[in-house]
Amino acid sequence: MSKNASSSSQLSSAPYFVAVDLGSNSFHMLIARENNGVLEVIDRVKDMVQIARGLKNGVLSEEAQERALTCLACFYDRIKEIPGSQIRAVGTKALRAAHNADDFLSKAEKTLGYPIQIVSGYEEARLVYLGVSHSISHDHRKRLVVDIGGGSTEFIIGQDYRPKLLESLSIGCVTYAEKYFQKAAERGVVTEKMMRNAYLEACEELELIRKTYRREGWNVAYGASGTMKVIAGLMPELTPTGVITKVGLESLYDSVIETGKVDVEGIPKLRRDVLPAGLAVLKAIFDQLKIQELHVSLSTLKEGLIYDAIGRMRHADIRDETVDHQLDKYRIEKKQGKRVKETALQLFSQLETQAISGLNAEKILSWAAMLHEIGLSLSHSGYHHHGRYLLEHGDLAGFNRYEQFLLATLVGMHRRKLSVQQLSTLNPEHRDTILAMVVSLRLAVLLNRRRKRLPVEPYLRWEDSTITLTFDAGWLEEHPLTLLTLEQESDYLRRVGLSLIYQ
Amino acid sequence: MSKNASSSSQLSSAPYFVAVDLGSNSFHMLIARENNGVLEVIDRVKDMVQIARGLKNGVLSEEAQERALTCLACFYDRIKEIPGSQIRAVGTKALRAAHNADDFLSKAEKTLGYPIQIVSGYEEARLVYLGVSHSISHDHRKRLVVDIGGGSTEFIIGQDYRPKLLESLSIGCVTYAEKYFQKAAERGVVTEKMMRNAYLEACEELELIRKTYRREGWNVAYGASGTMKVIAGLMPELTPTGVITKVGLESLYDSVIETGKVDVEGIPKLRRDVLPAGLAVLKAIFDQLKIQELHVSLSTLKEGLIYDAIGRMRHADIRDETVDHQLDKYRIEKKQGKRVKETALQLFSQLETQAISGLNAEKILSWAAMLHEIGLSLSHSGYHHHGRYLLEHGDLAGFNRYEQFLLATLVGMHRRKLSVQQLSTLNPEHRDTILAMVVSLRLAVLLNRRRKRLPVEPYLRWEDSTITLTFDAGWLEEHPLTLLTLEQESDYLRRVGLSLIYQ
Repeated sequence: MSKNASSSSQLSSAPYFVAVDLGSNSFHMLIARENNGVLEVIDRVKDMVQIARGLKNGVLSEEAQERALTCLACFYDRIKEIPGSQIRAVGTKALRAAHNADDFLSKAEKTLGYPIQIVSGYEEARLVYLGVSHSISHDHRKRLVVDIGGGSTEFIIGQDYRPKLLESLSIGCVTYAEKYFQKAAERGVVTEKMMRNAYLEACEELELIRKTYRREGWNVAYGASGTMKVIAGLMPELTPTGVITKVGLESLYDSVIETGKVDVEGIPKLRRDVLPAGLAVLKAIFDQLKIQELHVSLSTLKEGLIYDAIGRMRHADIRDETVDHQLDKYRIEKKQGKRVKETALQLFSQLETQAISGLNAEKILSWAAMLHEIGLSLSHSGYHHHGRYLLEHGDLAGFNRYEQFLLATLVGMHRRKLSVQQLSTLNPEHRDTILAMVVSLRLAVLLNRRRKRLPVEPYLRWEDSTITLTFDAGWLEEHPLTLLTLEQESDYLRRVGLSLIYQ
Repeated sequence: MSKNASSSSQLSSAPYFVAVDLGSNSFHMLIARENNGVLEVIDRVKDMVQIARGLKNGVLSEEAQERALTCLACFYDRIKEIPGSQIRAVGTKALRAAHNADDFLSKAEKTLGYPIQIVSGYEEARLVYLGVSHSISHDHRKRLVVDIGGGSTEFIIGQDYRPKLLESLSIGCVTYAEKYFQKAAERGVVTEKMMRNAYLEACEELELIRKTYRREGWNVAYGASGTMKVIAGLMPELTPTGVITKVGLESLYDSVIETGKVDVEGIPKLRRDVLPAGLAVLKAIFDQLKIQELHVSLSTLKEGLIYDAIGRMRHADIRDETVDHQLDKYRIEKKQGKRVKETALQLFSQLETQAISGLNAEKILSWAAMLHEIGLSLSHSGYHHHGRYLLEHGDLAGFNRYEQFLLATLVGMHRRKLSVQQLSTLNPEHRDTILAMVVSLRLAVLLNRRRKRLPVEPYLRWEDSTITLTFDAGWLEEHPLTLLTLEQESDYLRRVGLSLIYQ
């Protein structure tokens, strides 16, 4: 584990933040605070755990898990006294792909002492861009940012802090090393065929975005990730520092084929083993996207995580923007969402619920309320199912996978039958809280069916499996439609073992 | 079975068309031709089969199936000599809801002698509007059209031939009669409570559309369906013929409650039994949508079917418009769709395939090719699955359920792994043809990955389970990426028992 403390290792004056990146190639930890818009790094730790190497048939091996847990235990030791609200830990491609990620994550969270969130490729790309774009000047030029990771490579085009195209492809220096360079690691010789095959597969993946990206265009290209940093260090003399040129890259590629190895001192073995794959991938990227030169940025995902956390603390939560964007995209009426949101929060606030670590239940409930009609854009019939699908599978900037899953779950359960089977798949420790959110949302939707301001604030109690909803005296009798709907609702709830009393 | 031949019963000069409507309350058959824009009815048959009455827990009873088959046998006798291309037979709500619809349909198709298509509620609404709007003058006024059926009620707002809002709600005179008036049929007495409950449930369903429809507004309201025709006949004296007024409707509703029955001569028992439900439903519609008067239109779904068939014959196929509309809605690049479509058709045309009765395979393949990237609007990752979902569940005007299913299936199978399990769920008689469509589409997508005009027209053969794709000599060697992709494709196809040879 390499460790280089930059400035002070004293953690005194707030606000400081911790980002933990459980990458497919390396795990990183960054402790930093913002000072006049610049990130002041307090500590930085990195470990090439290479969990992507331990992924066989979608299962993360015991050895890889051991390596990962050892590293996280060291991280824990460094951050154990920091409040959870200032820590963001995320997993990427290898953990997205592992079937046994849940098992591993529960061990990993215990070891690290904080919740770990899996982010989608799209969200990973957004965070990478956020990190890179904060480390370079606000020059209004169009940028291409590429981050070659262990299991996936992110491609972003944007301007200043605003990404425009975001993509994550299944190209990774560790996964490619496993697939094409296994024998090179054993015999110590890299062949032209190995390089060629890795290059071709990367070219083929890149076809998916090549035309769109080239049509969009950019003025300057940046590369983030250790692979690029090392390759930049291997450029011919007179190449500016931190720049990879097409000519330099090609001569490096050719020399590896010629000599059969990456012959450089001072590069650790783990890095050296994945470098030929990284070179083949980078050459494919240069060729397919017609790049002439690429500037290496030292900031990436983990810096992005810190800026994202700072943004949320300052009430500039990108997730609010995302929800707004979804409402516009699917042309959903916002007024009704707001009415439902107000009622849902009013109901939920009356319930005593267990907090879910790392998750703001009120925010999730609010967003679900705003978005509950999103499925109408497909069809009225079964629109809650459509909403669930759109939210579960759409690219939602700022949301981690679990938040996205919960949002989709709430929207999918906001009306009609509740499925015992679906409820049983929820994390048992979170189930009661989620059920309270679901019921608050369902009742809010039901009470707001007239699509006018709701003139009552009903009183809600929940004891064991009995939910009691109380209105001002006489109100229900004057609203026979609400009464009928509550009758149906009590039927639906009864089927999942809850009894609803309304009075 | 009532039968009233309007003009001649001679079927001589084409073009004439047959529409068969397997409604939840009545089955209808209409034989007609268009003459200077007006429908010239040659024959019209109706039978109150009431299959919705035979639907218990989602299963269509043996008795209901018997009634239906007897009716269809009579229809068959009347139309057996008419070419299939001029016949459209559709099933609606009761058949959408029946779990055993497939079993029944295969018997029904044998008895009728022609394929029967299930249409979605959305498509049903579109066809109703098409029928109604052709029967009234082109006056540019905004119209509300309501069709109370046995199992569902359609609500459409439109202008001239163009519908703007289309909705189908689960309100039906037969299903409500079963639910609320069972005892009335047994004891011969309708109570206030029965009427009130049916009325309230309909009001509650109507809340789903009330505000949107009232905000959209209309100048004149039309009602289609037998229920409305009968109710119009029961209006007080001095009410214009074919008009239902709010005052008249309310006095009829009250008199039914007062006397406990619908006391009118000349109405057949089957109709009389569902009339109280129809009255309660219609009163709910008047109240929720604030209707003062409603004009009864004699044209509806079956006339719509005929106009739709005529449109297709004249190359004004609404499905082309629908596909275009989807491409716009999801902002999909049309050029790439066109390239893939051309290649797919070129490949498919070389295969000898069995025609699927009532279905134009080339058209389905073309639309699937145009739409194959539709899922990109959600996310790049797994976009073929998203495309499948959007097409399977979206409102697609002009498509019947099976066509929509096939479109979704093709898009869902256009790349990556093919599932043996999914292929096994396809109708065995259609499977080979569908597989030929799938393979043509997959190869077309793969060959067009560079998103430029494809400079070759490969030669395709399919013998038993071996597919041979032949290019001009030397072409493949010059295109290593295509070669690599074909290698992967042959892997995917091998897993479903097909071997792909490319040369």
